[in-house]
Amino acid sequence: MPRPLTTHTHTHNTQTQKGERVVGILGTGDFSRSLARRLVASGYIVLVGSRTPKRFVSLFPEEVTSQIDAASQADIVFIAVCPEHHSTLSDLKQALAGKTLVDVSNGLRISQYGPSNAELLADRFPESWVVKGFNTISAWSLQMGPRDGSKQVGDNSKAKISVMELCRRMGFIPVDMGLLSSSLEIENLPLYLFPSWRVPVLGTLALFIFFYLYNFIQDILQPYVTAGKNFFYKMPIETVNVTLPSVALVLLSLVYLPGLCAAFLQLWLGTKYKRFPDWLDQWLTMRKQLGLCSFLCSVLHAIYSLCLPMRKSARYELLNNILLSVNDGVEISWDDEKVWRMELYLSVGIMALGLLSLLAITSLPSVANTVNWREFSFVQSTLGYCALAMATIHTLLFGWNRAFIPAQYRFFLPPTFLLVLILPFLVLLGRLALLVPCVAQRLRQIRRGWEKSHHIRFTLVKPLQAIKN
Amino acid sequence: MPRPLTTHTHTHNTQTQKGERVVGILGTGDFSRSLARRLVASGYIVLVGSRTPKRFVSLFPEEVTSQIDAASQADIVFIAVCPEHHSTLSDLKQALAGKTLVDVSNGLRISQYGPSNAELLADRFPESWVVKGFNTISAWSLQMGPRDGSKQVGDNSKAKISVMELCRRMGFIPVDMGLLSSSLEIENLPLYLFPSWRVPVLGTLALFIFFYLYNFIQDILQPYVTAGKNFFYKMPIETVNVTLPSVALVLLSLVYLPGLCAAFLQLWLGTKYKRFPDWLDQWLTMRKQLGLCSFLCSVLHAIYSLCLPMRKSARYELLNNILLSVNDGVEISWDDEKVWRMELYLSVGIMALGLLSLLAITSLPSVANTVNWREFSFVQSTLGYCALAMATIHTLLFGWNRAFIPAQYRFFLPPTFLLVLILPFLVLLGRLALLVPCVAQRLRQIRRGWEKSHHIRFTLVKPLQAIKN
Amino acid sequence: MPRPLTTHTHTHNTQTQKGERVVGILGTGDFSRSLARRLVASGYIVLVGSRTPKRFVSLFPEEVTSQIDAASQADIVFIAVCPEHHSTLSDLKQALAGKTLVDVSNGLRISQYGPSNAELLADRFPESWVVKGFNTISAWSLQMGPRDGSKQVGDNSKAKISVMELCRRMGFIPVDMGLLSSSLEIENLPLYLFPSWRVPVLGTLALFIFFYLYNFIQDILQPYVTAGKNFFYKMPIETVNVTLPSVALVLLSLVYLPGLCAAFLQLWLGTKYKRFPDWLDQWLTMRKQLGLCSFLCSVLHAIYSLCLPMRKSARYELLNNILLSVNDGVEISWDDEKVWRMELYLSVGIMALGLLSLLAITSLPSVANTVNWREFSFVQSTLGYCALAMATIHTLLFGWNRAFIPAQYRFFLPPTFLLVLILPFLVLLGRLALLVPCVAQRLRQIRRGWEKSHHIRFTLVKPLQAIKN
Repeated sequence: MPRPLTTHTHTHNTQTQKGERVVGILGTGDFSRSLARRLVASGYIVLVGSRTPKRFVSLFPEEVTSQIDAASQADIVFIAVCPEHHSTLSDLKQALAGKTLVDVSNGLRISQYGPSNAELLADRFPESWVVKGFNTISAWSLQMGPRDGSKQVGDNSKAKISVMELCRRMGFIPVDMGLLSSSLEIENLPLYLFPSWRVPVLGTLALFIFFYLYNFIQDILQPYVTAGKNFFYKMPIETVNVTLPSVALVLLSLVYLPGLCAAFLQLWLGTKYKRFPDWLDQWLTMRKQLGLCSFLCSVLHAIYSLCLPMRKSARYELLNNILLSVNDGVEISWDDEKVWRMELYLSVGIMALGLLSLLAITSLPSVANTVNWREFSFVQSTLGYCALAMATIHTLLFGWNRAFIPAQYRFFLPPTFLLVLILPFLVLLGRLALLVPCVAQRLRQIRRGWEKSHHIRFTLVKPLQAIKN
Repeated sequence: MPRPLTTHTHTHNTQTQKGERVVGILGTGDFSRSLARRLVASGYIVLVGSRTPKRFVSLFPEEVTSQIDAASQADIVFIAVCPEHHSTLSDLKQALAGKTLVDVSNGLRISQYGPSNAELLADRFPESWVVKGFNTISAWSLQMGPRDGSKQVGDNSKAKISVMELCRRMGFIPVDMGLLSSSLEIENLPLYLFPSWRVPVLGTLALFIFFYLYNFIQDILQPYVTAGKNFFYKMPIETVNVTLPSVALVLLSLVYLPGLCAAFLQLWLGTKYKRFPDWLDQWLTMRKQLGLCSFLCSVLHAIYSLCLPMRKSARYELLNNILLSVNDGVEISWDDEKVWRMELYLSVGIMALGLLSLLAITSLPSVANTVNWREFSFVQSTLGYCALAMATIHTLLFGWNRAFIPAQYRFFLPPTFLLVLILPFLVLLGRLALLVPCVAQRLRQIRRGWEKSHHIRFTLVKPLQAIKN
Repeated sequence: MPRPLTTHTHTHNTQTQKGERVVGILGTGDFSRSLARRLVASGYIVLVGSRTPKRFVSLFPEEVTSQIDAASQADIVFIAVCPEHHSTLSDLKQALAGKTLVDVSNGLRISQYGPSNAELLADRFPESWVVKGFNTISAWSLQMGPRDGSKQVGDNSKAKISVMELCRRMGFIPVDMGLLSSSLEIENLPLYLFPSWRVPVLGTLALFIFFYLYNFIQDILQPYVTAGKNFFYKMPIETVNVTLPSVALVLLSLVYLPGLCAAFLQLWLGTKYKRFPDWLDQWLTMRKQLGLCSFLCSVLHAIYSLCLPMRKSARYELLNNILLSVNDGVEISWDDEKVWRMELYLSVGIMALGLLSLLAITSLPSVANTVNWREFSFVQSTLGYCALAMATIHTLLFGWNRAFIPAQYRFFLPPTFLLVLILPFLVLLGRLALLVPCVAQRLRQIRRGWEKSHHIRFTLVKPLQAIKN
């Protein structure tokens, strides 16, 4: 017997192979159809159970049979029936006993309190093993091929493993999310609409409205009220173009502010083992979104700026200037200061935009996956601070000496570029403070697990060692 | 015996471990080399079988041996020999019996009819289990590390599972694609050249050529023929820049038109259980590609537009205008209407481009993977329609009142912006029609599985309930 | 007994289920906390072992117990203790015997020579099975959910498989990297800082500095020295904007040069079975990075160019030109040649940029994953050469006839555009040479495995067949 094991397995295989590979689906909706097609493509034998099998035979290339048939022949049965109609499955209780039921249903709305559909199903079929899963995969991605992962929960380890294996063979990546009691969370997942983006987007909008009104008052309303000049044509482009960089710079500072807060909090508490306050925790998780909003504003600012010389209004102004100086014989002198100011702030601005683009590209999930943690933090933290510094210098060069010209304080309000510089200055100063050697060393100690309270306890015994560290 | 199971497994392991981990490769080409290197990196013992082992020993860091040796010592044997030379393997029939053969070959050209290489191999070795796979992985990605997934087919479940496990340990994601009869499809996969892009790209080109000629006739030929004006210098930039947004707008409408057609078809048929005609099905799958082509045209349009004021021709025109008005003493009056028109259409255009960028970013596979279905359809449908509306307004503002000026109808042809607006107007009107409450409700019912024919049957019994739904 | 197997498995399951699912973690740092949270989320029972369990009970939602307890109850034990403190674990030797230890530690600095932390640990616990892994996953991505894969090595197959299974259930993709002797490489992985980018970025910087100085001397220093003209204001934008496209074009040629070298080397050696010299191998792996650096320079060049007309200096120049011609009565004539030159090189430049963008997008990992090898090489090679040709034409059109004007040779140095054209011309000529039928055929033969030496040997026997091929 040269290969007894293999031979044995072959026989064994042919017998149990079919049983292992039969999968039942109860329900005949879109999801059911896509699921059946995908399972067949992955080499499974699919039995679709319907209350009116004849009606659906033409729609399914797979075998459509009665519900009881599908339930009794398969070991894994997908429940693809609306949760409201789960009661109609009660007759199958006997046939489904001991089987693995996969509940693929979603909630109708985001729900804070249970019980979840899966828990209700488990109550209805106490002798079956309910696994929640596949609900985060859409019918569309079932059809188009592997796209996202499936998240599973369930109480029975074996049932869950068999469902995960099935999922894996279909080309999806299963993620075990624990016990069935977590099913509510999974049922809510497909109902969310960018929850992590809500606050950053609303914040961006609020900042935009605030700065737009501020600039409108300063640049359009003030000249109209005091001098009767009609600058309302500036509203669609020029005012927007002054507003966008303000929003971008403030948002970029808000990306780096919470990290500073956390560092100073740790320094003050003298430990890293105390939880941050909730607002800080949430702020820390929003940094990526804030950064991308800032990037969007910067890019729009660049495009708006590049549009400026192409406008009819810019042309008219130019023409009028020329005609004025020709008629009056006034010579237009080359103002070296103005030239240098503009060349410099344009150049620095482009470089800041270039750095921000690198940050944005590294935020793409597929790029972030290919860099290690050290590279990720180098780009996001070191290059990010460089971008913030560049953007601050861009604004400073734009402001030049105009902060000291009283005419810029229209309606006694400081010019926008001055207002906008406060936050980045604070952040950059805070960052510099953390670079002071003694502060930096203490923070490093704390982040390695050192604690002030313990330190005090041990100080009497070994003070020198603590200092050496 | 505190841990009998573990101890037992240890012994057992050491005995069978080697057998399990020996993999044979027949063939010594590039793919064979990369595969061997990767398998060794994943902890397998690799035996490379060659007809002239001595010649290749220096090229392979792994053991190179005779084909019969490699075939008899391993349970899984990769067949990395050109399909034309499969006949040379006939001597190994005995040694390969009961083994799992992995056919990694590709077709030479896309073939509609079988038999596939894998099926021919299975015929040649009827006592072995042939699994088709690894052919969609390139030698390059075997070397560079996990990149894409491998697709497998095969008739024997156990053989397939062991190959998939091997594949998984190498860091690739295996996808079971069913029985060996599907192997032809898998062999064709690496030969395709953007099949889903062919129609969209050709359509874009056709639209581009049509609109380019149309604009050429109107803007360059007509002035030349009727007034002898030489505007041919406009061909590389200005004409292209009028053509690109036309193409972009038409393509964007074509993205949303098939969805509307599908909805109206469902409303008319009164069911979602009838298949769409083939052209509609194919059109629906092309929406992403059409959208990205539209985005590309929009971005190019933006860059071309921004280049306009930098051209020498723009400068000469400006200078001549000025000299004319200086010499003639004509005053250039500030035309408020022209100013507002330009400021508005620029601003709306930039916003439309910003929205389209969001759509494009969400089309990236890695970003699409991180959003759920609701978020995806919010971006692609809601934001997409906003972008279409914006782009339409941009074109309307650009047109302004010029549709009513007879001089714009050169050669009696309507101006381009008028021609281009027809399709987006139709789409937007169709979309608005679907928002009318009674239509929207009926569509919702149909998409939940309601059917007109059934409805009619049941109407006599419970008409009120149907209305309440 | 209708379902004996299933019933049996159920009982069996409930008994062993707990044992299988208990995982121990020694150490209470950040990584330990994130790991514990993730394991619990994936349905495992986690025992955290600490020397001072009471102190950490509040920080861990999981059970914190003594080290000996955690070590003896679990089959898989994570060693999340600093490598320096591995000695403190010596007491657990007995309890850990026969268990699978997962060493998650990183090196402190990149190390060329062993032994690795994992090997030291294996020496310390000779009766346990050490698997190295999870060190490439950061605490952050453990918390945020599956992001990147884990790479494992280990000497014991069973231990490694159980760790990989655990890893997979947590939603990560494990990659088996071979025996424990490879652990040093894995420990170094998280310490790298863009190793593949170092040479391309430094090369880009060097090229930038060289061309910047070259342009500075030609465009700013020469007029200042010879004519006393102050053009220093051109430094931030105009000089940068001439430098960037030079760097971009040279880098793009450097992307395609190594492929040509390889092809000519293969032609010369008459075989593909000889290894390339090391410098060529390394150059070939850098092509993607060089291409992306080239793309970045091109995009910056585009933005800088678009900024040109908006600058104050451009305005002053324009105004002075006008005033001069008005006062002197000089007419500014429309120079058709200048107009055409500019329209053409702008248009070609935009198209080159468009093609480069397609190349850059296809370099994104997630996009590269969705295309097959043929599509990838079509974009990167065919479209890439088109982009190179376009960029070369853009430069030629920019240069126009100025290469023949002696005034352009300031300080007897050739103008930049001439210097920059050498390399792309060489590359394009080399590529054309490879398209000559007889050369192309020979190269195709070599790449299919044909060898000159063998050929000579066989020529005498079957010369005709060789020619037919």
